[in-house]
Amino acid sequence: MNIKDIGGEFALIDRVTRRGGAIVGIGDDAAVLKYTDKRYQLLTTDMLCEGDHFNLQWSTPKQVGMKSMEVNVSDIAAMGGLPTYAAISLSLRPDTSVEFMDAFYEGLYESADRHGVKIVGGDTTHASIMVVNVALMGVVEKERLSLRSHAKRGDLICVTGDLGKSMAGLELLKAGVPGDTKAHLEPKCRLKEARIIGKHCNAMIDVSDGLASEVNHICKESGVGGIVFRKMIPLSKSTVESAIKLCKDPYNYALNGGEDYELIFTIPEKDLKKVKVNCPITVVGEILADKEGVKIESGGSKTALKGGYDHFA
Amino acid sequence: MNIKDIGGEFALIDRVTRRGGAIVGIGDDAAVLKYTDKRYQLLTTDMLCEGDHFNLQWSTPKQVGMKSMEVNVSDIAAMGGLPTYAAISLSLRPDTSVEFMDAFYEGLYESADRHGVKIVGGDTTHASIMVVNVALMGVVEKERLSLRSHAKRGDLICVTGDLGKSMAGLELLKAGVPGDTKAHLEPKCRLKEARIIGKHCNAMIDVSDGLASEVNHICKESGVGGIVFRKMIPLSKSTVESAIKLCKDPYNYALNGGEDYELIFTIPEKDLKKVKVNCPITVVGEILADKEGVKIESGGSKTALKGGYDHFA
Repeated sequence: MNIKDIGGEFALIDRVTRRGGAIVGIGDDAAVLKYTDKRYQLLTTDMLCEGDHFNLQWSTPKQVGMKSMEVNVSDIAAMGGLPTYAAISLSLRPDTSVEFMDAFYEGLYESADRHGVKIVGGDTTHASIMVVNVALMGVVEKERLSLRSHAKRGDLICVTGDLGKSMAGLELLKAGVPGDTKAHLEPKCRLKEARIIGKHCNAMIDVSDGLASEVNHICKESGVGGIVFRKMIPLSKSTVESAIKLCKDPYNYALNGGEDYELIFTIPEKDLKKVKVNCPITVVGEILADKEGVKIESGGSKTALKGGYDHFA
Repeated sequence: MNIKDIGGEFALIDRVTRRGGAIVGIGDDAAVLKYTDKRYQLLTTDMLCEGDHFNLQWSTPKQVGMKSMEVNVSDIAAMGGLPTYAAISLSLRPDTSVEFMDAFYEGLYESADRHGVKIVGGDTTHASIMVVNVALMGVVEKERLSLRSHAKRGDLICVTGDLGKSMAGLELLKAGVPGDTKAHLEPKCRLKEARIIGKHCNAMIDVSDGLASEVNHICKESGVGGIVFRKMIPLSKSTVESAIKLCKDPYNYALNGGEDYELIFTIPEKDLKKVKVNCPITVVGEILADKEGVKIESGGSKTALKGGYDHFA
């Protein structure tokens, strides 16, 4: 039986993993572990494979290093926490040069230093492709912990920054068309913003698999329904321009592309004005009762909100 | 410049990583982090790549799952600690079956349950080869912490169980010769024994890269010299039989093969009798002054102890 026959990546995770053992375990951006009276400890891990998460044809080794750290910090950020210690596992092609490694680590440390992460361990091996795994610990004050599962009926669904920019960049690179590829090659997570949002929001998640996937995660884990208004999804001018060049729909990039590392959070309307951050925040929808399902409104009609990036779809 | 030109895997690690940020960071089996008044927290990570650390021609998916957990628990054991929480990253081939994953996780949980490890998170993606990364946390009482760097002149160098068995099994499998392959396919770490040894030893390390490599690590990190007596290295009957079948030297398996996941520790002679464990312990050498270098005695002559498994040699 193929993984796609049981429903893809997330169905596989539900099937093979047990929940339990942590305060919050599998099913959020990071595991939440007992720590002190006032704080939880967090643990997350992300694996980046050559040819899938990065391509050395167009990413510099420094960019691969930066991205490897940034996507993990994004998971800790999405819990409302601060990252602390990282362990790096690397499989390298046997012909990897020392200069490549110097540049890769330069990027890794640049991102780590910006976010206060200490790299304390790792493992180096070789394989036929380059694979990077970062395991990252963090801490969060109990009152700032932001889970996927705490969205409440009536909350607004909000997004930081703009979406679809990573996939737009990737599609340009694949097609060899010039344009804005920075968001794909050098994604930046929203750690500072997440710390502020985490004080006020009910639920939070980072955008690794696309808006459609993330809103579904929040609704499933919270036992609620929701609606997203397509025309309210924030797109940058350059994402729209890239889509036009490629004759593609930029909303598809936002809904299904992923790797934007923006934040999606749900918050009561009255609390939204308390969130003071240095980036745009856009309301894209609302949390509804469970029986309403998870939908997208487009051109006056509502349909099920499906999609998002699935490694095994 | 190639990695082997600067001295291989461990020279690369010295070049690209910074030390600091942890109580003990890069350069031991696991990073040692601040925790409570009486205990440290530990963090380790190990990546296993198809074709390098396991081969699906002869390993069952369950065996791959068991090994992935066991080798990480071995790192926590070698610090004198107990494992707590794990996060699993997986890259799978797109054609991976659900049955394969069920069996892989059965093995992973079997080993995790035996050692009291809770699997609390992970990441699943796809690539052209299967890659498993386990990030494992642990705890250790301050007085039981066993570092590579605390060997003292005059200590005996001791080994649990026997060595070379994993490489002997691998060589049989590669050659298609029948024999004892269990130690390669289903390695078992020495968690219980390590907890007892940790109370008495000065330095400890697990055997992942072979006796030669591990003794050199201990001596380098401790700023001491040492001598290993070749004929005292413990070999099992089946390891010797396998070597005979393959016309190879079984001591080479022990010195350079790795993946035995036995423990090497250094301890004052007077304390050795306090170590009461359910496995053989063999004295294989002695810690000397730094100026003596790290040597092996064989047939009456002493030579530099070189070798051990290096991914980039």
